[in-house]
Amino acid sequence: MKLYEAPSPNAKRVHVFMAEKGIDCERVTVDLRAGENLSDEYRSKNPGARVPALELDDGTVIAESVAICRYFEVTHPEPVLFGSGALEQATVEMWQRRAEIGLMLNVAMAFRNISGYFKDRETCVEEWGRVAAGHAVAAVPMFDARLADSRYLAGERFSIADITLAVTLQFARRVQVELPEMENVARWEAEVRERKSYKAK
Amino acid sequence: MKLYEAPSPNAKRVHVFMAEKGIDCERVTVDLRAGENLSDEYRSKNPGARVPALELDDGTVIAESVAICRYFEVTHPEPVLFGSGALEQATVEMWQRRAEIGLMLNVAMAFRNISGYFKDRETCVEEWGRVAAGHAVAAVPMFDARLADSRYLAGERFSIADITLAVTLQFARRVQVELPEMENVARWEAEVRERKSYKAK
Repeated sequence: MKLYEAPSPNAKRVHVFMAEKGIDCERVTVDLRAGENLSDEYRSKNPGARVPALELDDGTVIAESVAICRYFEVTHPEPVLFGSGALEQATVEMWQRRAEIGLMLNVAMAFRNISGYFKDRETCVEEWGRVAAGHAVAAVPMFDARLADSRYLAGERFSIADITLAVTLQFARRVQVELPEMENVARWEAEVRERKSYKAK
Repeated sequence: MKLYEAPSPNAKRVHVFMAEKGIDCERVTVDLRAGENLSDEYRSKNPGARVPALELDDGTVIAESVAICRYFEVTHPEPVLFGSGALEQATVEMWQRRAEIGLMLNVAMAFRNISGYFKDRETCVEEWGRVAAGHAVAAVPMFDARLADSRYLAGERFSIADITLAVTLQFARRVQVELPEMENVARWEAEVRERKSYKAK
């Protein structure tokens, strides 16, 4: 089993998830700056041309971080990170999506469009980057309100939704997309970042 | 159980999913144009202020279409729409995400930013709308190549990934985001649209 990856918030999500489950595997770094992910060889593995992607021993490739995590959730059920039973599974999915679509994707669009990091291969619209940054800023209070009442996003149990949110906050700081610092998010984030899985490389 | 909704591709996704499972429930229309989703009353149910949202009989609210679908997948396991076993579940998640993030979100951004449909409440950046439309166009060939080899996106079994893609293609036509017409996608789309669940209201 091989994990094709590049240093990125998505790779971090998969690393934390795997560390929670006690899973390790060979890692192959894909050089995004050099466009290695756009090569025919890589596209033959993952036509989506994105990282990370997990190649199983029989050559089957699973792309998309959350799909990789879901694979491991079934092969290594403990600890449960996508919830158990109808309501918890739905609650995890709801918060995972709010963290990813409401926050992570907006932070990524802000970063890419404002910095022009990939301007050699994509059209950057700085004005949209600023709008996306505003959407990300506006999304934070909902998480803070939730974390005022709940230990983790989906309830008493740590889940993939927490991984997505924590990784996104760290990424936003690194790429200078400024998000509001809020009390309950700060309490929760300190706790998540103390987890052994979060510190794992 | 009540489903809060507005005519939208996300509502259509949930309707098809529920029809596949043979589930029905009360529906409450939320007037998005009038901003009913932004009211304090609606936000007290769903702080994300989006539709659809499912209110259970005990008042618990599950927001986000895919989270609602996941709830029903557990309460009504047949037919399986999120896959079964590690590899199929991961494959469904991968194609569901490619359809949603790669295509549906880009079509939605193209529509909203070019048409200014919600310009009373959001900043529209037409140039970004055109970039997003280009990303959507560029995403289609991957689906066509997949559907040349596979009956459905995730394999031999119809899944939520197919629902997301079919609903997105229909939505793109309605909002005039022009996507390439491709042979294998057309074969698959005709088949999906013939399903009883897809014709259900």
